[in-house]
Amino acid sequence: MESPPTHATPVDFETDPSRYRHWRVSYDGPIATLAMAVDPEGGLRSGYELKLNSYDLGVDIELADVVRRMRFEHPEVRVVVLTSGLDNVFCAGANIHMLAASTHAWKVNFCKFTNETRCEIEDAEAYSGQVYIAAVNGPCAGGGYELALACREIYLQDDGSSAVSLPEVPLLGVLPGTGGLTRLVDKRKVRRDRADIFSTTAEGIRGKKAVEWRLVDGVYPRSRFREAIAGRSAALAAELARALPAAERRGIHLGPLLPELSAGRRRYRHVELSWDDNARLARLTIHGPTAEDVALLGRGAEAAHAAGDQLWALRAFRELDDAILHLRVNLPGVGVVLVRAVGDAAQALAHDHALTELRGDWFINEVIRHMARALRRVDLSSRTFFALGDAGTAFVGALFELALAADRFYALDDEDAPVQVGLSPLNFGALPMTHGVTRLRAHLHGEPEQLSRLGEAAQLLSVGDADEAGLVTVRLDGIDWDDDTRVAIEERLSLSPDALSGMEANLRFPGAENEDSKIFARLSAWQNWIFIRPNATGAHGALTLYGKPERPHFDWNRV
Amino acid sequence: MESPPTHATPVDFETDPSRYRHWRVSYDGPIATLAMAVDPEGGLRSGYELKLNSYDLGVDIELADVVRRMRFEHPEVRVVVLTSGLDNVFCAGANIHMLAASTHAWKVNFCKFTNETRCEIEDAEAYSGQVYIAAVNGPCAGGGYELALACREIYLQDDGSSAVSLPEVPLLGVLPGTGGLTRLVDKRKVRRDRADIFSTTAEGIRGKKAVEWRLVDGVYPRSRFREAIAGRSAALAAELARALPAAERRGIHLGPLLPELSAGRRRYRHVELSWDDNARLARLTIHGPTAEDVALLGRGAEAAHAAGDQLWALRAFRELDDAILHLRVNLPGVGVVLVRAVGDAAQALAHDHALTELRGDWFINEVIRHMARALRRVDLSSRTFFALGDAGTAFVGALFELALAADRFYALDDEDAPVQVGLSPLNFGALPMTHGVTRLRAHLHGEPEQLSRLGEAAQLLSVGDADEAGLVTVRLDGIDWDDDTRVAIEERLSLSPDALSGMEANLRFPGAENEDSKIFARLSAWQNWIFIRPNATGAHGALTLYGKPERPHFDWNRV
Repeated sequence: MESPPTHATPVDFETDPSRYRHWRVSYDGPIATLAMAVDPEGGLRSGYELKLNSYDLGVDIELADVVRRMRFEHPEVRVVVLTSGLDNVFCAGANIHMLAASTHAWKVNFCKFTNETRCEIEDAEAYSGQVYIAAVNGPCAGGGYELALACREIYLQDDGSSAVSLPEVPLLGVLPGTGGLTRLVDKRKVRRDRADIFSTTAEGIRGKKAVEWRLVDGVYPRSRFREAIAGRSAALAAELARALPAAERRGIHLGPLLPELSAGRRRYRHVELSWDDNARLARLTIHGPTAEDVALLGRGAEAAHAAGDQLWALRAFRELDDAILHLRVNLPGVGVVLVRAVGDAAQALAHDHALTELRGDWFINEVIRHMARALRRVDLSSRTFFALGDAGTAFVGALFELALAADRFYALDDEDAPVQVGLSPLNFGALPMTHGVTRLRAHLHGEPEQLSRLGEAAQLLSVGDADEAGLVTVRLDGIDWDDDTRVAIEERLSLSPDALSGMEANLRFPGAENEDSKIFARLSAWQNWIFIRPNATGAHGALTLYGKPERPHFDWNRV
Repeated sequence: MESPPTHATPVDFETDPSRYRHWRVSYDGPIATLAMAVDPEGGLRSGYELKLNSYDLGVDIELADVVRRMRFEHPEVRVVVLTSGLDNVFCAGANIHMLAASTHAWKVNFCKFTNETRCEIEDAEAYSGQVYIAAVNGPCAGGGYELALACREIYLQDDGSSAVSLPEVPLLGVLPGTGGLTRLVDKRKVRRDRADIFSTTAEGIRGKKAVEWRLVDGVYPRSRFREAIAGRSAALAAELARALPAAERRGIHLGPLLPELSAGRRRYRHVELSWDDNARLARLTIHGPTAEDVALLGRGAEAAHAAGDQLWALRAFRELDDAILHLRVNLPGVGVVLVRAVGDAAQALAHDHALTELRGDWFINEVIRHMARALRRVDLSSRTFFALGDAGTAFVGALFELALAADRFYALDDEDAPVQVGLSPLNFGALPMTHGVTRLRAHLHGEPEQLSRLGEAAQLLSVGDADEAGLVTVRLDGIDWDDDTRVAIEERLSLSPDALSGMEANLRFPGAENEDSKIFARLSAWQNWIFIRPNATGAHGALTLYGKPERPHFDWNRV
């Protein structure tokens, strides 16, 4: 059923503007213009051409890089105009031939990453006051419109051919799975019966009807389009500048991470990922902040700016983010990840306090928001994570979030090997999960009194106290540690990977759902189902046969 | 990939106590005891034995009947003790051999129905003050524990062998998909890391640890178990009797519906379902209340009690419920259902007003809650529904919910054929969707001002006014009606059934999610995915090989 993997060489998730092949960014004070101009020959893999601004994972890796750099490197930007750099097309969505030729796992990971990127666009609006508006200057189909939907406002050129559409259901027999269905009815609040018509109308909707149906915020004739977008961008930038006083913000540069690569190992400065393909086991270790890292923060925001991308909190979490992406896409056979946060607990606690003190600074705010995003990637990764709190570890504050993000936290209670666990102010709101609640609240969902007792007091806890407070899954003494953790890992590795993915996706998110979590849960789970149905990906399925003369052959039974 | 359908003869969803093979119900004032004693030879289909109180759809049809009759026929009951009538086992869950031999569609429909039944148990607690407690007097595994989870309280016998467990992931490579994972962390608020251990431990958890982990509410030794359950039931019944003053309630009998069956048609008194297998099209027509139905309600609650199961609002919606279930399970090839509510709009409006006036009466309350459940089955059915408001129709009040539940509402605007649309008090809260919001609110999610303008005023609207108010999807004149509806139906019938199921499940539920909707969305969508993964249902999958000497063979890649 699966086509052979098309990703023979590892995907590199790092890039920088000098290497972009698909995006052009230009700056004009508070307004940036991001033009999509996909190089048809620039696909990440061979076998398909990226025509009509269609995209693959490589295009989206660049987009994610743009969005991230916009926040760190160009904090003066208030409005990002997302438009097409090609004539006569805005974006045709995900490349269909790439999708049709990909394994199921590749499709799922591709959709997950592109979903995360679109959520990052909304995160930039919510937390950095950096607002994206889509200037749709040509046909805008499927993933193209889903990209526009991630923007705060969408303007459509009225030229007889530019339209917005979600043709996935009628043309491909799959869903608009990059948030499209959810953002239609939940974000833009398009009436659900109209959303039904729109999502089954391959040619899409344009002109005034697109406005009336809330699919776009305005239409302008071609002759006035640029001017209208410029006017709206300027007005929005002025409005945002009033809300966010125009401090003198100078961006910091995000340099390459340059991990040391060797067989079964990626070693970054603060993070190390090693794996054993035969054992299907990986180890992810993150080194906490040192006294110097804390001292640097103690010197204030200016010193932090000067450190830039070498600041521990930024660099360590960029490395974590990169390691997680590598694990997801390049190491599909790894089933269990053993997570260790090592270092000095007191410094980790002091670090979080110092970071929190400076959170009014734009750069520190970005650093914290970035930490939150990296941690959300862990929650959304379909791997089992066991956090191991053995000798030398310091799961404290932001690093304790890794223990909370893990499916289980094993902690060693041994006087000879004091293990440090602790909470900092960062555990109480700054690092929310996808569904909008803190990991601590999700974890202690059933014990609100424990949660309020932990309060906002930042504290170090013994393993015994942490266990009493409900923060430890399994507390072991030194005699049992090796055997018990070994057995737990072996047991986990014996279970069906699919059942585990489904189980973890259900257990990790107690409590409320929001728009983001509806995308990653309801919408993605349905899309994953459809991606393996013969009606989409079988020999005669609609996705398989797209662009070929043969018509798809459906099993008409409804399930 | 699919095994041949195992449902050669249509499933009958109607039953009554005289036909029960699997459940024994006894009454003692405000306390009823519901004992599960599944007849191993009583499977709905051949090819499997229902050993150890394992269940199939037939067993659950009886359970749903018990739960429904308890509310209508035994309103004096406050506490239902759910226990096992077999020695040494409470319930082993869904029958695995039945699951392994079933088509994908059958598994999905089986899970949907059993989920709805468990939600009905919770609905009885929430809206009828009829509380279920599980007396777990033996091993309680998988679907057995999920059944217990639907109860308000769970008590476990402490006898060295009785345990609660969710062994689906470790033994079968599928999820506990009948709400188990959701109810663990969201309803019982079991800590998610403990839920992870519990859901991967095939042998389950018993004794004090089960209490400490919130898996059960108490454990009692075998010698004291009956007595403890009796004590708790009596205390709870007394408590509930104080909250709900002990009015003299005499139940009404639910007689059989006795539809007239002919080729391609089920004709009930108020509902008719007809279908054309070749065209993949069904027509569902419901006849609204008459002047006599309204006059009867006008005579007050006593008269309504005397009418009993012949009351229009009860009978019509029981028929609707039965028709929808028939459609789901027995007519898998039908893709589009055309819904018409016919009758006299003024009477429909007057009816809803009269029903609302009497809603303080226990029986009328049950009638309204039953209407709500039948409508929720429509929302959760994976078929396209188009409501057709042409000549003779009266989509008013509770019947207008069918237009709102439909994916589209086509309305004819023709002076010669006045079509009636209207809202009654029942549209504003009494008939919520699975996710807890009214269909009107979900529909006008983006137009709160329209919603508040419609207010709570019950009114008849012209098609033009209804369209202006956002209540009509497509308004057509008499000239366009035939062609435009025909084309819409043909287009819909040409699309991939799987993509439509996924699309509809995403578009129908704008707004908040709650526990029920997490079960039907997140959990069920993941389960559906897993059900077609080779690791579960392939030739070497865990579900396929359960009970056989061969060990499952997994593709270890994580997706």
